[in-house]
Amino acid sequence: MISKDPVANLQALVRCPSVTPAEGGALTALSVMLAPLGFKVERMTATEEGTPDIENLYARIGTAGPHLMFAGHTDVVPVGDEKAWTHPPFSGEIADGILYGRGAVDMKGGIACFVAATARYIEKHGEFPGSVSYLITGDEEGPAVNGTIKLLEWAAARGERWDACLVGEPTNPERLGDMIKIGRRGSLSGRITVHGVQGHAAYPHLADNPVRGILQLTAALMDPPFDHGTDEFQPSNLEVTTIDVGNAATNVIPARATASFNIRFNDTWSAETLQAEIIRRLDAAAAEGSLRPGRNPVRYDIAWSERPSHVFLTRNNGLIAALSGAIQTVTGREPKLSTTGGTSDARFIKDYCPVVEFGLVGQTMHMVDERVPVQELEELTRIYFTFLEQWFGNAGV
Amino acid sequence: MISKDPVANLQALVRCPSVTPAEGGALTALSVMLAPLGFKVERMTATEEGTPDIENLYARIGTAGPHLMFAGHTDVVPVGDEKAWTHPPFSGEIADGILYGRGAVDMKGGIACFVAATARYIEKHGEFPGSVSYLITGDEEGPAVNGTIKLLEWAAARGERWDACLVGEPTNPERLGDMIKIGRRGSLSGRITVHGVQGHAAYPHLADNPVRGILQLTAALMDPPFDHGTDEFQPSNLEVTTIDVGNAATNVIPARATASFNIRFNDTWSAETLQAEIIRRLDAAAAEGSLRPGRNPVRYDIAWSERPSHVFLTRNNGLIAALSGAIQTVTGREPKLSTTGGTSDARFIKDYCPVVEFGLVGQTMHMVDERVPVQELEELTRIYFTFLEQWFGNAGV
Repeated sequence: MISKDPVANLQALVRCPSVTPAEGGALTALSVMLAPLGFKVERMTATEEGTPDIENLYARIGTAGPHLMFAGHTDVVPVGDEKAWTHPPFSGEIADGILYGRGAVDMKGGIACFVAATARYIEKHGEFPGSVSYLITGDEEGPAVNGTIKLLEWAAARGERWDACLVGEPTNPERLGDMIKIGRRGSLSGRITVHGVQGHAAYPHLADNPVRGILQLTAALMDPPFDHGTDEFQPSNLEVTTIDVGNAATNVIPARATASFNIRFNDTWSAETLQAEIIRRLDAAAAEGSLRPGRNPVRYDIAWSERPSHVFLTRNNGLIAALSGAIQTVTGREPKLSTTGGTSDARFIKDYCPVVEFGLVGQTMHMVDERVPVQELEELTRIYFTFLEQWFGNAGV
Repeated sequence: MISKDPVANLQALVRCPSVTPAEGGALTALSVMLAPLGFKVERMTATEEGTPDIENLYARIGTAGPHLMFAGHTDVVPVGDEKAWTHPPFSGEIADGILYGRGAVDMKGGIACFVAATARYIEKHGEFPGSVSYLITGDEEGPAVNGTIKLLEWAAARGERWDACLVGEPTNPERLGDMIKIGRRGSLSGRITVHGVQGHAAYPHLADNPVRGILQLTAALMDPPFDHGTDEFQPSNLEVTTIDVGNAATNVIPARATASFNIRFNDTWSAETLQAEIIRRLDAAAAEGSLRPGRNPVRYDIAWSERPSHVFLTRNNGLIAALSGAIQTVTGREPKLSTTGGTSDARFIKDYCPVVEFGLVGQTMHMVDERVPVQELEELTRIYFTFLEQWFGNAGV
């Protein structure tokens, strides 16, 4: 059975040019691996005006609980400078024990290994004492509008319930076994516009320079820190990502200045309480007015990003212990339980069941020559296999 | 002799569409007024690569000293929305005692009045006990590269020397006689670029956000004040006229941020000492580094505007007294001796002789429906006439 070999699985997936939002044959290739194992495979196309239609996949084996979900995506980021690749990005060529290809680690590699682990589990145990599902999207690297979030709603509406989820994103900074993600910070973006009064630079008393206001407001966002971190999370961090005025005339005081910011926040906050704190800071700074006497309050407005990413933290000890134990068994390393890094689709899954993330080493993700040693594919397969045994409670059976 | 009537003079000048840099017939019209009075009129075209050729005019009557210069410009700013004008901008139409036209106050009106005053002086006294010159440029509203500065050099190279200068720019905020300009602040502009390290907003420790640096550097420029003003000047004032990053991605920390500033400075500073102070402030703020521990100094560079405008202050009591006395005689008002407002071509003239500025009321300059009451033209002509008598020491003769 080909699906017991993660290397063959990964080559089949890499050879599908599924650059987001294209399906590229990748979900079909996955179906071909899962159906022979006994999975009921379903495809679901999600649509929303103004965004590309996205193909997604849901596959389940078993009908009873406990129910474990494996989540991930087959879409990949663009290849960049194709000529700079040592091996063609959709070739899956292996050289010196290393498999090259876009998506090799992010995250067709994780899927390939979980399929192999699933196949090996079924070969050894015959069936699962419960259910396993694959929830695979084609919209993780894109706007993430027609992907995991809609696929979860679709499945839940049909009565699907899960007890735990493992996301196969690359989580290890350097070596396989370094790090499990048990949470992620939230992400919130906003854009502030300060309205001034245009005028001549020689007559500042007749004008109101919005640059002054935007500096005061952004300063209020940057200091003091929002928090000093929590037991599980690093401190929330705000970056002002751009300030723009676009005034080319040096003798003119401009009418308007804008600034955008992005904050990665920990579980001290929800998106809502954080927005309230930001408004409180901006209002206080605006009310102070300019440093100059006689100035009016700063006039500003703020536009929030459409969809904040909510923070999540998994406290399900059984799930974490099963995964951590499997990693230690296979690699001899104790993985760090981390909440660092960017957002992932786990932020959507956490509303349905406890979720953790573990996959390959992320160093080459999104880069030219994305690649993975074939030996790491085998090692991750064994970790996933051991995790399945531990989570279903039949380790050593 | 038509040139005794400032209204007719002004209509002739307004009807020449001399929108900078076009001569538009305005210097020719002025020649036609001055030549019959006995002036030796010369035209001088100044050129410089990358800027439009500019026609200028120099006219002198008399060969002996003392030598008084009248300086100004016949070029005008664009008309703006021509349909919004009550009377066509180059018509010089008079309605209800008010003459309409682009340049009516800035500053064809001043020229028209000085010509009329010169004609009346000659009619009354026969000749000047010295010399009077007109130094008129077509490049005051443009880049001011091929105008007054080159015309002065050209004339000085031919041996011209002056004892005093009156610039006919509109100096009065509300009523004729309000204000003489006896000096002007200098103007200096610069552009700061802060160099950071681009990165992902979720991994700020791997990046270095230049927005932080640009905020620190601009804050150091804005506070504390550069000075608190002098006896003759208001405090120096710095405006940050633009900040630009141009980063459209909210999850990306940008690589670079720029800010431009303009400072209007008083006689506490020269352009050179002020540049040194600005560099001192920037270096100190840059060395402090970011507010965050472990950050490197801010890496920045600065580009200065090519030609700073130097500050000037006239302390020639004879010149000021003659003009101030003439204004009081005609209007009954004691003019304020001011150094406020933007720069003027007087900043170039001050290197050759003492210079003051006095003209019409500036309220409608550069606006749609620029206009002047004909009665004010007559009044300014009488002020200029009385000034000529006072300055040449034959008042009441």
